[in-house]
Amino acid sequence: MPMSEKSQKPHDRMATFLAADMLAVNDLIRTRMASEHAPRIPEVTAHLVEAGGKRLRPMLTLAAAHMCGYEGRYHINLAATVEFIHTATLLHDDVVDESGQRRGRPTANLLWDNKSSVLVGDYLFARSFQLMTETGSLRVLDILANASATIAEGEVLQLTASQDLATTEEVYLKVVRGKTAALFSAAMEVGGVIADAPEAQIRALFDYGDALGVAFQIVDDLLDFQGDAGAIGKNIGDDFRERKLTMPLIKAVAKSEAEERAFWERTIEKGKQTDADLDTAIAYLHKHAALTDTAVAARDWAAKAKSALTPLPDHEVKHMLNDLADYVVERIN
Amino acid sequence: MPMSEKSQKPHDRMATFLAADMLAVNDLIRTRMASEHAPRIPEVTAHLVEAGGKRLRPMLTLAAAHMCGYEGRYHINLAATVEFIHTATLLHDDVVDESGQRRGRPTANLLWDNKSSVLVGDYLFARSFQLMTETGSLRVLDILANASATIAEGEVLQLTASQDLATTEEVYLKVVRGKTAALFSAAMEVGGVIADAPEAQIRALFDYGDALGVAFQIVDDLLDFQGDAGAIGKNIGDDFRERKLTMPLIKAVAKSEAEERAFWERTIEKGKQTDADLDTAIAYLHKHAALTDTAVAARDWAAKAKSALTPLPDHEVKHMLNDLADYVVERIN
Repeated sequence: MPMSEKSQKPHDRMATFLAADMLAVNDLIRTRMASEHAPRIPEVTAHLVEAGGKRLRPMLTLAAAHMCGYEGRYHINLAATVEFIHTATLLHDDVVDESGQRRGRPTANLLWDNKSSVLVGDYLFARSFQLMTETGSLRVLDILANASATIAEGEVLQLTASQDLATTEEVYLKVVRGKTAALFSAAMEVGGVIADAPEAQIRALFDYGDALGVAFQIVDDLLDFQGDAGAIGKNIGDDFRERKLTMPLIKAVAKSEAEERAFWERTIEKGKQTDADLDTAIAYLHKHAALTDTAVAARDWAAKAKSALTPLPDHEVKHMLNDLADYVVERIN
Repeated sequence: MPMSEKSQKPHDRMATFLAADMLAVNDLIRTRMASEHAPRIPEVTAHLVEAGGKRLRPMLTLAAAHMCGYEGRYHINLAATVEFIHTATLLHDDVVDESGQRRGRPTANLLWDNKSSVLVGDYLFARSFQLMTETGSLRVLDILANASATIAEGEVLQLTASQDLATTEEVYLKVVRGKTAALFSAAMEVGGVIADAPEAQIRALFDYGDALGVAFQIVDDLLDFQGDAGAIGKNIGDDFRERKLTMPLIKAVAKSEAEERAFWERTIEKGKQTDADLDTAIAYLHKHAALTDTAVAARDWAAKAKSALTPLPDHEVKHMLNDLADYVVERIN
């Protein structure tokens, strides 16, 4: 391929390849987020849906369907479904986390209120459910219903695990599989199911989405301690301030000595933090190589995602998915 | 029938008639609200699900299925689905309304927190979706997906309509159809659909549920101004304090003169209320016969519900549904 293409980011190459489909997805999203009776709904959703997210999840569904030779139109429904579920969880996360910004813009619950975020999120869940029912595929419905339950379960688990220094990497992985990877894997899987792909390919799609999602979230959690606030669109140290036990913290806590342990108990368990504590926390993370070890874990998951692609048909989208797994962990540097 | 049966409340007679089914529904609810990974979930849901609600909505589904001669087992799934959707909306309402009690007990968001209420509600929505997918009926999925969207839309509409003195009875009816009647009508309708009843009967089931739901909500809104706090399990005047424009208020505002108008602007639009204002509000409601006119409207809807039953097969459950419509408005006295 020409240099100019090679140098493009993989999700931009996917966006170019899937441009016609993505136009159809965006049209469907705009149509279905409208509400005859409640104009507040499109006001709130437009803020999120038009906010210029990368639309990564719906692209995964479209990519999977294309790779498996699908020629129908229901992949458009499913891509919109996946984006609606994602947007609904963002709206509910904003209520939950009391976070101050999302994608570099104020969250909906600051612009409107918690009430609107909860109810408009519910509306989008219901709409996503209508969109997938239209496909007439009970297997697709089953996959996305299970994914929705797993997402909510992961979020609740995160709630009870945060502030708890006993949280292990195993629990962290369950949280990540729920809150992030479940939708990535379902987005891939339904693309294969709607294309009536062989079972081994459907399994491969699931495995790729699962590993990509885990890698993606680990990197996100890593960047929370070492990223550039402008680039990642959120504040450095948010997770620390919200007392979330993410992989870097779990690794550092596991190696902490008495004095450090007291620091974590005060800042994470008791939530007594001063402005200077974030720097101290980051120093402890460096001391125990928690950030570099976390980067290694993220790269392992990206490698798993790439090797999961093996059973899938050769297709230009397959190369993009391969490069996407690399790109997700390139964000670390 | 013996006097002792006749003197029983109609929903108690339904509960007796449907006792075996309701045991199966309760078992299914308990099984499906469990979570392997997140023990917080059953803690929160048990609080609501075990709180001794009347289980009116699932009984409607069971009743409709029996009346239409259904002999399978999926009505159990659908009854549990309907109760899960209802419980999820209660959890999200509690966040939204910041109300202090529900069914006479503290709300989940006071016992736990808003985060748990939002996320556990999401979990129940996803679980309800799994339960209905198991029936394999796309028509049932379509009905319940639409009902879920209508419920959320009604709640958002209520959000924008509250504090707004320009709210008409037409807007109020849309809110009520959404937040209450949509689930009543869907609960009835899916019972007929799963039984493969003739279309005219399915329509009749929908119409009964719709009219019963509207009557039920109008009575609820009426009792908010004239009920007995102990009996209805919530505080008198909650809607007034939350500046909700329900039917009694809309009727009184429509007839208000200058001085009263200023009172409503201060208390509802501007939200500047003192403890004495509720008594003044109630006095204005009596002055314009707003409470008695609202009672008339509720009785009209109950009559509509009863006449909707006409096309349905003669069945002992049909008599109970007829009496249930009467009972809903009897609560006024």
